Amino acid sequence: MGNRHDAELIERGSLCMVQSQEMNVTVKLGDRSYDIVIEPGALKKLPALMADCGLHARKGLVITDANVGALYATATGLSFPAATIPAGEESKSQATLFHLYDEAIRAGLDRKSIIVALGGGVVGDLGGYAAASFMRGLKYVQVPTSLLAMVDSAVGGKTGINLPQGKNLIGAFHQPSLVVCDLDVLKTLPPRELRAGLAEVIKYGIIYDAEFFAYIEANIDRALALDAEVMAHMVARSCAIKADVVSQDETETGLRAILNFGHTLGHAIEAVAGYGNYLHGEAIAIGMVFAVRLSGLPADQQARIETLFTRTGLPVKAPELKWDDLRRAMSVDKKSESGLPKFVLAKEIGRVEYGIPVDEAALAKAYTSLLASVPE
Amino acid sequence: MGNRHDAELIERGSLCMVQSQEMNVTVKLGDRSYDIVIEPGALKKLPALMADCGLHARKGLVITDANVGALYATATGLSFPAATIPAGEESKSQATLFHLYDEAIRAGLDRKSIIVALGGGVVGDLGGYAAASFMRGLKYVQVPTSLLAMVDSAVGGKTGINLPQGKNLIGAFHQPSLVVCDLDVLKTLPPRELRAGLAEVIKYGIIYDAEFFAYIEANIDRALALDAEVMAHMVARSCAIKADVVSQDETETGLRAILNFGHTLGHAIEAVAGYGNYLHGEAIAIGMVFAVRLSGLPADQQARIETLFTRTGLPVKAPELKWDDLRRAMSVDKKSESGLPKFVLAKEIGRVEYGIPVDEAALAKAYTSLLASVPE
Repeated sequence: MGNRHDAELIERGSLCMVQSQEMNVTVKLGDRSYDIVIEPGALKKLPALMADCGLHARKGLVITDANVGALYATATGLSFPAATIPAGEESKSQATLFHLYDEAIRAGLDRKSIIVALGGGVVGDLGGYAAASFMRGLKYVQVPTSLLAMVDSAVGGKTGINLPQGKNLIGAFHQPSLVVCDLDVLKTLPPRELRAGLAEVIKYGIIYDAEFFAYIEANIDRALALDAEVMAHMVARSCAIKADVVSQDETETGLRAILNFGHTLGHAIEAVAGYGNYLHGEAIAIGMVFAVRLSGLPADQQARIETLFTRTGLPVKAPELKWDDLRRAMSVDKKSESGLPKFVLAKEIGRVEYGIPVDEAALAKAYTSLLASVPE
Repeated sequence: MGNRHDAELIERGSLCMVQSQEMNVTVKLGDRSYDIVIEPGALKKLPALMADCGLHARKGLVITDANVGALYATATGLSFPAATIPAGEESKSQATLFHLYDEAIRAGLDRKSIIVALGGGVVGDLGGYAAASFMRGLKYVQVPTSLLAMVDSAVGGKTGINLPQGKNLIGAFHQPSLVVCDLDVLKTLPPRELRAGLAEVIKYGIIYDAEFFAYIEANIDRALALDAEVMAHMVARSCAIKADVVSQDETETGLRAILNFGHTLGHAIEAVAGYGNYLHGEAIAIGMVFAVRLSGLPADQQARIETLFTRTGLPVKAPELKWDDLRRAMSVDKKSESGLPKFVLAKEIGRVEYGIPVDEAALAKAYTSLLASVPE
């Protein structure tokens, strides 16, 4: 790991003959490989980009949410009908999933039809899972419209819905056939969601690439101002790191676990606070600060990480939540085996280890230290 | 196709170091390969058979139905808790699926846990789909207790549930890690279900193996009397043919479609008559007779096929159902593209072709001819 893969990671997409002014990334997974197109204005070219990848379907369904659909559903130029779900995590539910199945039948989809998930992480996870499970699996295209979805959930094939007992407890690994990131749509993203997306960008620096972490430190203000060049590099580099990890471990039997850095506590925060009270990126920012404390990094590296989250406008603690509740919620997490959570811990900025068991006392101590000393 | 693969198809299972007096079959799918153990008394050895395959899990869940569970749930010697669902096709539903998720969480399952589906096709399809979708996929073992499940649904990784709009509209390809067929359990199978299972056995003869078809003709009375040697050969040969087809086309992009011989009308009969009024094997027996008529086989071969179904005690027509209703139901079938069903048609006993478009007039004519002339 570390930052020695830089040169090979960022490469032009080659699978689909896609022509682009910006950097594209290929997720290499044998016959399930696909391109991530990263380009301002890409949304308007969606039918052409899909055709470039051989995605010709007589019938299809666009899945979007009320917010995104109002802004962009007609901009894509696709002739497929749209199924619009309510915005928000509550839509990653049994009821909404089965509503989408009904919409798919109403749209006359068959096994050769295509689903297009146009929206943020909720739409991508839910739409991807509908594609994975309808008629035992349809092809689908991810068109992420939030920064979080561009750099994380739209890439890698993890799809799913929540149960009342926990997030993403139902799901499938089902790779998209194409991912299209139109950087222009970030202009309509609420600033709070932009900051939350940057939490995942910072994560890639911590887990995989010290040089990228330094780039983020140097350019965080330009990123927050949506500087086009900075944003293009941050999205492309994040996607390239994720693609590299997923290519090595598609179904998370090992390495892919590093992408969950900060997520064990992060998921617990989301569950205990109630989904939606913390954005995913906000919750994992706190989770990463917690994991850094648990890792026992040198003080200067710990300070750099915590300062960067604070400069990004992300929370670094959740003092209103009780430790006992968070600890209990961590036991239900998918990553736990037999009730004992294992952690991804940082060895230094740019390098982590996964599958590390941590005892109860160390967990509680790290959380106490975080509450006591992290700057507001 | 044809019967020329006989010698190589039936082979001893080798993946799991399983020792057995009977013929085992291996489904060859690279790193997803698995053995089908076919043996009287195998149920009692289930923990040992699982251990032979490296299936050691601290936690697991047995999914069974009320009928099978009462007879066999304790016979397996497994220490896992059991989730018992009502017997019958109605259980392949959204509600039962989500009930099983709750049971899986209650049983404390994690990603390394194992699901055991102990029952007929409904339990296998539903339990397999619960395994495919819970925590993005758990390993599972199929323990089919009906003849139909042994020779068809337990092998090949097709899992799923029904929607009100049609059968198996939601599902996944998710291969089991082991299939265990205890031929002794067929002694408690209702005779009507035995006959329905033989419909699928006869199907393998028609689609793939004229010699096997002749064997069934010569031994159908012994099969109906549950002769151990005949039943062992029929199950092993059926599984071997299915394994061979699935190994060549796991996700039904081509050849696997031949396994659907008779299923287009069969599924429509089940849907129109109401699930459960015709057993699956009964419905596809009629569907196969229809497909044979549609195929225009020579009269002697057509007569041999229809006579064999009749001798087996299977229905060959459903005169109480309206053609218009059946035709409409066929349009919703997963195999249809843009509303036009394609068919598997027989060229001769032992050889079929798939993906054949048939026009409306030919469909109606074949159905009329079936109603008019097939013996009761």
